[in-house]
Amino acid sequence: MTGSLGVAVIGYAFMGKAHSHAWRNVGAFFPEAPRIRQQVLVGRDPGQVKTAARDYGWAESATDWSTVIERDDVDIVDICVPGHLHAEIALAALAAGKHVLVEKPLANTVADAETLAAAAAAALGRGVVSMVGFNYRRVPALALASRFVAEGRLGEVREVRAAYLQDWLADAGAPMTWRLRQDTAGSGALGDLGSHVVDLVRFLLDDEVATVSGDLHTFTTERDGPDGVEQVTVDDAAWAWLGMASGARASVEVSRVATGRKNGLHLEIYGSDGALTFDLERLNELNVIGREGGFERVLVTEPTHPYVGAWWPPGHTLGWDHTFTHQAREFLCAIAAGENVRPSFADGLSVQRTLAAIEASAHDSSRRLHLDHPLGAAS
Amino acid sequence: MTGSLGVAVIGYAFMGKAHSHAWRNVGAFFPEAPRIRQQVLVGRDPGQVKTAARDYGWAESATDWSTVIERDDVDIVDICVPGHLHAEIALAALAAGKHVLVEKPLANTVADAETLAAAAAAALGRGVVSMVGFNYRRVPALALASRFVAEGRLGEVREVRAAYLQDWLADAGAPMTWRLRQDTAGSGALGDLGSHVVDLVRFLLDDEVATVSGDLHTFTTERDGPDGVEQVTVDDAAWAWLGMASGARASVEVSRVATGRKNGLHLEIYGSDGALTFDLERLNELNVIGREGGFERVLVTEPTHPYVGAWWPPGHTLGWDHTFTHQAREFLCAIAAGENVRPSFADGLSVQRTLAAIEASAHDSSRRLHLDHPLGAAS
Amino acid sequence: MTGSLGVAVIGYAFMGKAHSHAWRNVGAFFPEAPRIRQQVLVGRDPGQVKTAARDYGWAESATDWSTVIERDDVDIVDICVPGHLHAEIALAALAAGKHVLVEKPLANTVADAETLAAAAAAALGRGVVSMVGFNYRRVPALALASRFVAEGRLGEVREVRAAYLQDWLADAGAPMTWRLRQDTAGSGALGDLGSHVVDLVRFLLDDEVATVSGDLHTFTTERDGPDGVEQVTVDDAAWAWLGMASGARASVEVSRVATGRKNGLHLEIYGSDGALTFDLERLNELNVIGREGGFERVLVTEPTHPYVGAWWPPGHTLGWDHTFTHQAREFLCAIAAGENVRPSFADGLSVQRTLAAIEASAHDSSRRLHLDHPLGAAS
Amino acid sequence: MTGSLGVAVIGYAFMGKAHSHAWRNVGAFFPEAPRIRQQVLVGRDPGQVKTAARDYGWAESATDWSTVIERDDVDIVDICVPGHLHAEIALAALAAGKHVLVEKPLANTVADAETLAAAAAAALGRGVVSMVGFNYRRVPALALASRFVAEGRLGEVREVRAAYLQDWLADAGAPMTWRLRQDTAGSGALGDLGSHVVDLVRFLLDDEVATVSGDLHTFTTERDGPDGVEQVTVDDAAWAWLGMASGARASVEVSRVATGRKNGLHLEIYGSDGALTFDLERLNELNVIGREGGFERVLVTEPTHPYVGAWWPPGHTLGWDHTFTHQAREFLCAIAAGENVRPSFADGLSVQRTLAAIEASAHDSSRRLHLDHPLGAAS
Repeated sequence: MTGSLGVAVIGYAFMGKAHSHAWRNVGAFFPEAPRIRQQVLVGRDPGQVKTAARDYGWAESATDWSTVIERDDVDIVDICVPGHLHAEIALAALAAGKHVLVEKPLANTVADAETLAAAAAAALGRGVVSMVGFNYRRVPALALASRFVAEGRLGEVREVRAAYLQDWLADAGAPMTWRLRQDTAGSGALGDLGSHVVDLVRFLLDDEVATVSGDLHTFTTERDGPDGVEQVTVDDAAWAWLGMASGARASVEVSRVATGRKNGLHLEIYGSDGALTFDLERLNELNVIGREGGFERVLVTEPTHPYVGAWWPPGHTLGWDHTFTHQAREFLCAIAAGENVRPSFADGLSVQRTLAAIEASAHDSSRRLHLDHPLGAAS
Repeated sequence: MTGSLGVAVIGYAFMGKAHSHAWRNVGAFFPEAPRIRQQVLVGRDPGQVKTAARDYGWAESATDWSTVIERDDVDIVDICVPGHLHAEIALAALAAGKHVLVEKPLANTVADAETLAAAAAAALGRGVVSMVGFNYRRVPALALASRFVAEGRLGEVREVRAAYLQDWLADAGAPMTWRLRQDTAGSGALGDLGSHVVDLVRFLLDDEVATVSGDLHTFTTERDGPDGVEQVTVDDAAWAWLGMASGARASVEVSRVATGRKNGLHLEIYGSDGALTFDLERLNELNVIGREGGFERVLVTEPTHPYVGAWWPPGHTLGWDHTFTHQAREFLCAIAAGENVRPSFADGLSVQRTLAAIEASAHDSSRRLHLDHPLGAAS
Repeated sequence: MTGSLGVAVIGYAFMGKAHSHAWRNVGAFFPEAPRIRQQVLVGRDPGQVKTAARDYGWAESATDWSTVIERDDVDIVDICVPGHLHAEIALAALAAGKHVLVEKPLANTVADAETLAAAAAAALGRGVVSMVGFNYRRVPALALASRFVAEGRLGEVREVRAAYLQDWLADAGAPMTWRLRQDTAGSGALGDLGSHVVDLVRFLLDDEVATVSGDLHTFTTERDGPDGVEQVTVDDAAWAWLGMASGARASVEVSRVATGRKNGLHLEIYGSDGALTFDLERLNELNVIGREGGFERVLVTEPTHPYVGAWWPPGHTLGWDHTFTHQAREFLCAIAAGENVRPSFADGLSVQRTLAAIEASAHDSSRRLHLDHPLGAAS
Repeated sequence: MTGSLGVAVIGYAFMGKAHSHAWRNVGAFFPEAPRIRQQVLVGRDPGQVKTAARDYGWAESATDWSTVIERDDVDIVDICVPGHLHAEIALAALAAGKHVLVEKPLANTVADAETLAAAAAAALGRGVVSMVGFNYRRVPALALASRFVAEGRLGEVREVRAAYLQDWLADAGAPMTWRLRQDTAGSGALGDLGSHVVDLVRFLLDDEVATVSGDLHTFTTERDGPDGVEQVTVDDAAWAWLGMASGARASVEVSRVATGRKNGLHLEIYGSDGALTFDLERLNELNVIGREGGFERVLVTEPTHPYVGAWWPPGHTLGWDHTFTHQAREFLCAIAAGENVRPSFADGLSVQRTLAAIEASAHDSSRRLHLDHPLGAAS
């Protein structure tokens, strides 16, 4: 095996496909990262997972994650199954001494997230690295935005105006699915889209959420299911105001019924000396206040920009999928260094606490709630 | 006087200049409206108002509004002085039987607004017309947006995402002014910018505000004044969530510290079957969902579009100032018809009540408040 | 008349309406210019010109331009009739000692333009000022672009990519008009739209055309006229490459069949150290290369920007019509100074020669032609 | 080997890296294509090609292409070396019965291109497939554009306005390289960028070039080389007007000194009933005339759009690199079918003839030249 790290991915659906893409490609662009082997893809359906493993470049497939995580030729466990299954697998993998990457959200409950964060902190002491998959931190334009904020180019950040808007539920005739049931999905737009936004605000400002007000709404309360009309028990849209520890204020709106928005993650950050805007539908672009006071559209494809020097010449844009390739690169380099890497499980826990507080506020007439972070600032 | 209507404008600063522009030009483009005379411009400084009157095309200037509103050759009183002076002048003018246009906001307090709305309703019975100057209803693109919503092209409107962002207070070194004192200005970004947004949401959806949550913040709490450091007593930025009577939800953010935004009134309206977006910095454009599901940029300069048939050929854009020309046209046509015209003083009152509720919520941990509209839907 | 200048406008159609707008408003915004009186509007139809005069703010109307230009209370003659009538009126007005503003193009033929340029040069010696109405030099964003180029912010200008695209002839079923006949219109898109582009390239680069290659095409060669099918004898679209005296190269494309373009005057200027882009459909915006190497969108509404300090606060945009107001301001200030003003009749002549050369090249397989400018650089 | 096709890539620089990416990923997204093996990567430097082979996923590396193309375990030869080497390798590979993909341009001379087109036509009769790598036909938005044109949504296409603008030579201080010498590079912007544009115009309109006028220019004629100042012998920028066989007209501008443009392939297509625009820097977007007559921005990420159904959910954008993945898919499917695939070597020849004619016209005062296509329309 000559020093390469064996990877196992658990799950072969949307996220399993995206993570497989990353593992298949990371070595071609980031030779500085430890080399990996695509060892095994794990899924429930033996036939389907076998086909997926072949297509996606895996040496083998398997159906039982619990034996896979014990294998000696598996060094990394990458968990791409639904959120309510994260905790059990991740805890077992950490216990087996494997490095663990968990797709976001870290967990469906604050309690699970706390357990995981504690386990990850303990494992790090043994040289075992863990990370949660908030892949948008790896969009080059957002990594550049973070750099600009950190360098003080915006001065003191005051206001963030953020939204994550999609429209796949805009049609009231769209059918009921497990994603629209509280017991299976945990939450709706808030958990799915809001978790990304909350993590990004924390990341871009290098800041923590101190207070929240929240609101939730379901526009279409009943949908046709296989057994007749069913109640939709998660939110279609959610709103939040975040008071950050630094004093900055952020407004957040997320929705699955925003007709015309396919993947509209919009960010506006206003500081005393500058501002930034970003739209995920144009993920190679970052807009920053320029010398004339207007927004300058920066095509984030220069060699000096984060990640993109590894790819193609200026002007040759990247797609959404390579955010996962960058994520794999960061995770592998952290493993090599034996060091903590952000977004850590502690970050995942902070996000989970924030979402829980938004939900609590929503159920209390949007009254502002104060968060405390007993673990201290996420790390 | 051969049937033309004599106009008196009270105030010759920013708004007086803009309204003068409208009166000077309305006849050239809207011959269907009653003809007017630019009779008299009123201001406190005799020399300055005389110069302004000459430059802006007025026959005379005067310094005492109370005698001007009694003159027989004055049919219309157009009030462009600061908000706390609106009520006294408007009530006197209505009592004198003059048609009254009041620059927004209608008044600085709900109590004043109630008195004015009641007086306007009574005056209408005597054929006296009144209107409040929410000029953005007269932007052709927004009038077209209103038409599209009314025609059902968006289906059921669900979410509105609105902001009005400026940056003239982004510099913490900008000096103290009367606009930043509660006692002289009434409020900050909320009253100045929020009033426009609240009126537009009501107008575009033809709907009324039912519930509000609010938040206010002052980022720079002290500024240098002529006599040393002073406390800033109004908000730099404000946020609100509006629950509309129809069930639609609107989020509102207004700010004077949004670096890079000069006049950034951004509107996004999402319905079950379509969507709209608008940015005041590109006021000739409306974006609507097209047949491929993307946003179509409509240049609102076609003869079939509201107002613009009176102007130039397609593609020849209009400026901000002609929103006032259109406003004058609507007011004059209502006078000719002896009919109510929106935005009425009742609309102005509804906006005022909404702003007051946002402020109350902000002082109560953003708790959601229910508005009642004892006068019924604004009319 | 207390020192004010009496203005006569000849023509009350599209351009007469636009120029009237300028004369009606120039004093309100540019008090530094000599004051004017809207003395008389001249047109052929007595009833229609009387109505237009009343609507557009003129003291009188008249039907005979030849007597109007002799009147003592007329100091300025502003010619807004079709191009083939320009020379006769302008020459007579100059002979009568009147300042003359001629709507573009200066004339329909090079011969007429030469006569006019010589007459204007002679008149200037007698303190009589003349100007041609290339109003796009007065768009604040383009005046700012000119300033940026002159200041060297682009370094050495190398390439200009220009187009003026409209679509009002895209429909092959649109009827025949006098504008589509060579004998009445002179030319098609080339003269109408190309003249603007050629003047702007010369203006923005402060440069002169040295060589041209050209091409012309008529996509719809027959259209229905009142007496049956007629031959279209002007171009629908034209193309040119201009070699500038400085060595810069410009490509030009103009069209009346560019579906979806209403008034699409697009300019891109590439220099060794920077670049600019502009689109007339967004006339308040100029895009310039910023410090990160991307295009910065400058909203040209700051007090330091050309013309706009006279108008409204930052972010309050101007419309197409006020380019004429700015033009009137420049013309009036030149009269007060008794000085030459650009675009002079000599500029108009240079443009005419360039257009004629493009046409000649088009008829000679697009072969490159060298222009000589016997009058020297336009002035 | 069980039926999978062995691939050899010749060249491991920029294009070799991009093609390797395609071969590594094609199977994961396009299971309908024949399966391949990344058999061998060929390059001159044994150490470097070995490292590249390992990083890019190849089973082996080699330094002698002539033996590689004879190997039984190689079915596909993919040529990514500079243009002047294409003919020899491609002819040998075809003679060896291998399917051949040649990176664009097909060849540096018309003579070479003719030989290759004839050889490819002959090979097809033996079931051997060949293709030239104009990868921009595989941008989903451009494939969609082609579909829209073919469906008649634009009506009769009249005008194309095209440019391909980059800025990597804008700095006059950039050093001399082999790319700037006629003898090594063949041509400058014309061959490099113009070839893409010419192919796209032919592809999008499904049309052939009938006439051309051309111009070439070198703005910086001397640059510092390793042995002192050298003459630049290729063009920095080129211009062409194309008359298409259908009667449509296209203007083309390509440049390497267009400051601020990183990969600015801009296309505008105007038809009698619609229009399209595209910018490669936003390669997931296509703008089409919508029902209100404005441009609708279509995010080309819907399952019904070309290629993208194989990837991610709507709104999850693709990067430049996957145009090569799509290209590999098309080539493999053509091999499976034993059928001709476009862009064929005949397409490559048509492009080469057009470029040669542009150059000839440029050397003859831009005089219009007529092309004849003795092989008939490309196929």
